[in-house]
Amino acid sequence: MALGEFELIRRFFTAQAVRHRETVLGIGDDGAVLCPPPDHELVVTVDTLVSGVHFLPTVDPERLGHKALAVNLSDLAAMGAEPRWASLALTLPEADPAWLAAFARGFFRLAERHGVELIGGDTTQGPLAITVQALGWVPRGAALRRSGARPGDRIYLSGPMGCAGLGLKIRLGQVAFDDAEAVLRLEQPEPRVELGVSLRGIASACIDVSDGLAADLGHLLEASAVGAVLEFEQLPLTEGVRRYLAGGDWRLPLVAGDDYELCFTAPAERVLAASGCVPVGHIVAERGLWLRKDGRDIELLPQGYEHFA
Amino acid sequence: MALGEFELIRRFFTAQAVRHRETVLGIGDDGAVLCPPPDHELVVTVDTLVSGVHFLPTVDPERLGHKALAVNLSDLAAMGAEPRWASLALTLPEADPAWLAAFARGFFRLAERHGVELIGGDTTQGPLAITVQALGWVPRGAALRRSGARPGDRIYLSGPMGCAGLGLKIRLGQVAFDDAEAVLRLEQPEPRVELGVSLRGIASACIDVSDGLAADLGHLLEASAVGAVLEFEQLPLTEGVRRYLAGGDWRLPLVAGDDYELCFTAPAERVLAASGCVPVGHIVAERGLWLRKDGRDIELLPQGYEHFA
Repeated sequence: MALGEFELIRRFFTAQAVRHRETVLGIGDDGAVLCPPPDHELVVTVDTLVSGVHFLPTVDPERLGHKALAVNLSDLAAMGAEPRWASLALTLPEADPAWLAAFARGFFRLAERHGVELIGGDTTQGPLAITVQALGWVPRGAALRRSGARPGDRIYLSGPMGCAGLGLKIRLGQVAFDDAEAVLRLEQPEPRVELGVSLRGIASACIDVSDGLAADLGHLLEASAVGAVLEFEQLPLTEGVRRYLAGGDWRLPLVAGDDYELCFTAPAERVLAASGCVPVGHIVAERGLWLRKDGRDIELLPQGYEHFA
Repeated sequence: MALGEFELIRRFFTAQAVRHRETVLGIGDDGAVLCPPPDHELVVTVDTLVSGVHFLPTVDPERLGHKALAVNLSDLAAMGAEPRWASLALTLPEADPAWLAAFARGFFRLAERHGVELIGGDTTQGPLAITVQALGWVPRGAALRRSGARPGDRIYLSGPMGCAGLGLKIRLGQVAFDDAEAVLRLEQPEPRVELGVSLRGIASACIDVSDGLAADLGHLLEASAVGAVLEFEQLPLTEGVRRYLAGGDWRLPLVAGDDYELCFTAPAERVLAASGCVPVGHIVAERGLWLRKDGRDIELLPQGYEHFA
């Protein structure tokens, strides 16, 4: 890209409302300088979205800017961390001012809502891809992990499963009906940041559902060295997903990704008042993942989780 | 990619020698948890390398793994920071075990030399690109910046200019002679980490030369609101570059990128004993960048630096 194009890009990413006093030096040098509070721990996460793989090349750039940050804030939420900073590595085939303005608008609107300051980045020419790194913090020792689930714990979900997956099927023309909610969830997911923070000291383990419930709960079970039974009838589903399931493909809420809800466990005696979260199963000592459906237990993940794709 | 391929990739990136006691939680959860020492500031930087743009698709993957980390450690060096952690976002067209093993070997060899622990990442399918984020720290207030150069300061370079640029010309078949040193500098640059740390309290401003001396010194001058005079005859050059310059294209050491040397300024009275750094000019009050060559002053960058590409 010519220098003028880089200047153009820079212009879209230098005007931002959030500025933390813990930011000693923000965008514009070889690195940012940060001074997180001493009684806190820093939580760091990174995610890449590749055009044609993680999003359709035709997606609204404003929604894409939102999603590129949202998937990282979802990781911070799963750790119980408060978001603070992000860096943005943007690879673009060309510098299209309208596209860039919309992308930046989506990115910064979500950033402002969650108090995220952009502290650096890199703009390169190449096939469209976005890598965001997000930094947040937790009081020392308070981070949620995947590894704390214990037999007897209940399993909760923060919201419906399979909704984003239905949105993808709609966008790909694989479903005969429309569902604006599903498409919005696919393209503009809402990270459960406040919930994640509120689960500190309550959840025994937590993960965000990005790859699908079976896969991500599988990661949590593996890290905790336990198993689980999921109750199919208790899975939270939208009307659109129920309508889709009526067509016969009941696996969607278990295998579809991109919902960015939290899946977490908590001891049964910890009442989750007014959290909006739904109990969907329980942890067992024997390793594996079973789905209770129509009175039968279906094995979803055998020990070792090698054969499920 | 199939799950098995992700497992394969994970295997190459989980065995590492470096582990810091400030790492509360490393690879394997939704985020890493870090606890930097309270009297220090954190320095964060990110850089992307795109195949066909920042490296030739045919490059030795071991050198590429080295370089992907090196360009970020060079940014930390320019801030005077000690490297501590890195995350790796790797986008791959396919999971080739031999390629991955070599890439990981190059990445971890450099990581171990500088005490860098890999704390997270994301592996995605798509056109080959690598985004590394590096984190380091400095004692509070000690970070080097681009903005501290003052009129009268001397300008120094930590090593030869144009060498990596010559290496690129050789790789592209644009030069009739070979120069293994130049190709090595292009493909496996050595970040000036120890030098950067040693310049704390000495350098008034610092930047790493990644885009070319004129452009990067231009950034430093702009941040410091000053100008500079560079002495062409004092620029450190390798034998290969001298040989290339004899062909007539004297601009190479000024415009070629990828050398990853440090360019810094320091008051004239601060003697730089045994640093191996070479004085190449001085800072002036009038904004702009002039090259003194063959008794003439050539204006390289006018005020505002808008027209130089």
